[in-house]
Amino acid sequence: MQHYSDISKNLETSIEAYRTKIAGLTPHELYDPLHYILSSGGKRIRPLLCLVGCDLFNKPYTKAIPAALAIELFHNFSLIHDDILDNAPLRRGKPTVHEKWNTNIAILSGDGMLVNAFEQLALAEKEHVKDLLALFSKTAMEVCEGQQFDMNFESQSQVSVDDYLAMITGKTAVLLGCSLQMGAICAGASKEEQNHLYEFGKHVGIAFQVLDDVLDVYAKDAGKFGKQVGGDIIANKKTWLLLEAFEKADGKQKERLKALLNMPATQATEKVNGVMALYDELGIRELALKEADSHTQNALQHLDLLEVDAEKKNHLRQLALHLLAREV
Amino acid sequence: MQHYSDISKNLETSIEAYRTKIAGLTPHELYDPLHYILSSGGKRIRPLLCLVGCDLFNKPYTKAIPAALAIELFHNFSLIHDDILDNAPLRRGKPTVHEKWNTNIAILSGDGMLVNAFEQLALAEKEHVKDLLALFSKTAMEVCEGQQFDMNFESQSQVSVDDYLAMITGKTAVLLGCSLQMGAICAGASKEEQNHLYEFGKHVGIAFQVLDDVLDVYAKDAGKFGKQVGGDIIANKKTWLLLEAFEKADGKQKERLKALLNMPATQATEKVNGVMALYDELGIRELALKEADSHTQNALQHLDLLEVDAEKKNHLRQLALHLLAREV
Repeated sequence: MQHYSDISKNLETSIEAYRTKIAGLTPHELYDPLHYILSSGGKRIRPLLCLVGCDLFNKPYTKAIPAALAIELFHNFSLIHDDILDNAPLRRGKPTVHEKWNTNIAILSGDGMLVNAFEQLALAEKEHVKDLLALFSKTAMEVCEGQQFDMNFESQSQVSVDDYLAMITGKTAVLLGCSLQMGAICAGASKEEQNHLYEFGKHVGIAFQVLDDVLDVYAKDAGKFGKQVGGDIIANKKTWLLLEAFEKADGKQKERLKALLNMPATQATEKVNGVMALYDELGIRELALKEADSHTQNALQHLDLLEVDAEKKNHLRQLALHLLAREV
Repeated sequence: MQHYSDISKNLETSIEAYRTKIAGLTPHELYDPLHYILSSGGKRIRPLLCLVGCDLFNKPYTKAIPAALAIELFHNFSLIHDDILDNAPLRRGKPTVHEKWNTNIAILSGDGMLVNAFEQLALAEKEHVKDLLALFSKTAMEVCEGQQFDMNFESQSQVSVDDYLAMITGKTAVLLGCSLQMGAICAGASKEEQNHLYEFGKHVGIAFQVLDDVLDVYAKDAGKFGKQVGGDIIANKKTWLLLEAFEKADGKQKERLKALLNMPATQATEKVNGVMALYDELGIRELALKEADSHTQNALQHLDLLEVDAEKKNHLRQLALHLLAREV
């Protein structure tokens, strides 16, 4: 990450400039939530990838600043609206927008943030705006689709591992691919190079999500992970692990798994232990790590195929491995 | 309108093609509401203006089809979300999206429709995408601002006529201006010509809204107007008429007006008659018609300044006057 400190600093300055601009705008009810959510932290990984995707081709990364801002605003818009859909009270330890204000303000300010995201793209160099807009809007639609599939899964009795992979690809992975590709577009890279970067980002995103499911159950350092270990099991969340377990289980194991899912909240510890025992029998943890690793390798192969400065390529490889290297 | 029958037909074919495309897409929960709201009628006045704005400069209006679709999708997105914000059960006589499905689906499918609107712009000719995107996103943000101001007015004790005019300009008028200007952009018109068309559309929009307020009280043919006459008075809606009445009233008249607004729902007829009597004393109806007329004249002056085919210009003038010629 150290190699990117200049880029990160420039990015924060640009986000700060946007925040300053909207701080003075009325109606306050529309703009205050945008200022609030952009001030509540976040790793800025997507806009960073966008700038890095431009820098990789030895073009000034500042060319990609509007696209990077578009990505970050879109990501934050999706948080505001997803938190309404999920009825979430907290985000990054602070009240969500619909909790701090109300649902109407969260809907409308989210809409405004989405519009502002697209508006940023109009600030890119004229020759790239059409390609940026086509990619960004296609990706944004896939994110909406992924979110709807995720909501559908909750009430759906049959969800396959493939359905799940398609959902996380849409809901989160394509935005990483899009971030990098938008950077490449701003650098004037070829379609082939753009595609390698997109696939690299997408597969890193899928690997990250599968590992996130693994960590929810097997995180060595719960404090570092930042969530309750076993939380997905307690909530009957359809994760890669649970869906793979259903696909691998024989008739008897399936019955056991169903019985475990029906356990009351008062028996949370028994439930977590019981599901983990079944995961052990079926080798689910290893299968998940294998799945994540296959996406990581796929990603790195696409990166290898890029004909760019070896050192810059290596820095991006390190960044990806750093993202994926949380202790399991 | 007859002059535009070819353009209207082509427009409907394009909207139908979009509807057919999304009818096959999954998840259905995301796309069905889009299909539903586009099938529920609507006058398609905004996309028509967009195509006419291109045709006016003797360029094939088909160049502006993506921009016209963008405008219509945006307008329908705003209906889906505004109906949530207003808690409206019906739209064009049919259940609103959040009533027919649920609020979560209405939020997310509205988001998807907004994204699809922007996606259409990426289908315009490359040289125009940047200008289209800049104008469209600026206008979309003004619509969000107008909607928030409108929501704020409900609980605000002091609203001036100027505040009100700024609100309706944002909430509805700028989208008419934007529609026409986007057509002009697609035709490669100059900035000056674009601006005249924008101002023409914007002032027609303001005149239309003020007349809508007049019609709510004074419509000769309630059936034609399509709403309950006096509905705004009964609901204490802050219309141009009511706000102007407060600005023109002396101390005693202000007290009378306040007392009338506090009347219970059971005395609706007395309330409407009482407010109308006060409007008569203050000459509010005439003042409103004068305000609307000044915007109409302003609009027509901008149209006159355009150096385009006289017959085409006249058709657009007739269209505007037709829109504004509802019986008061």
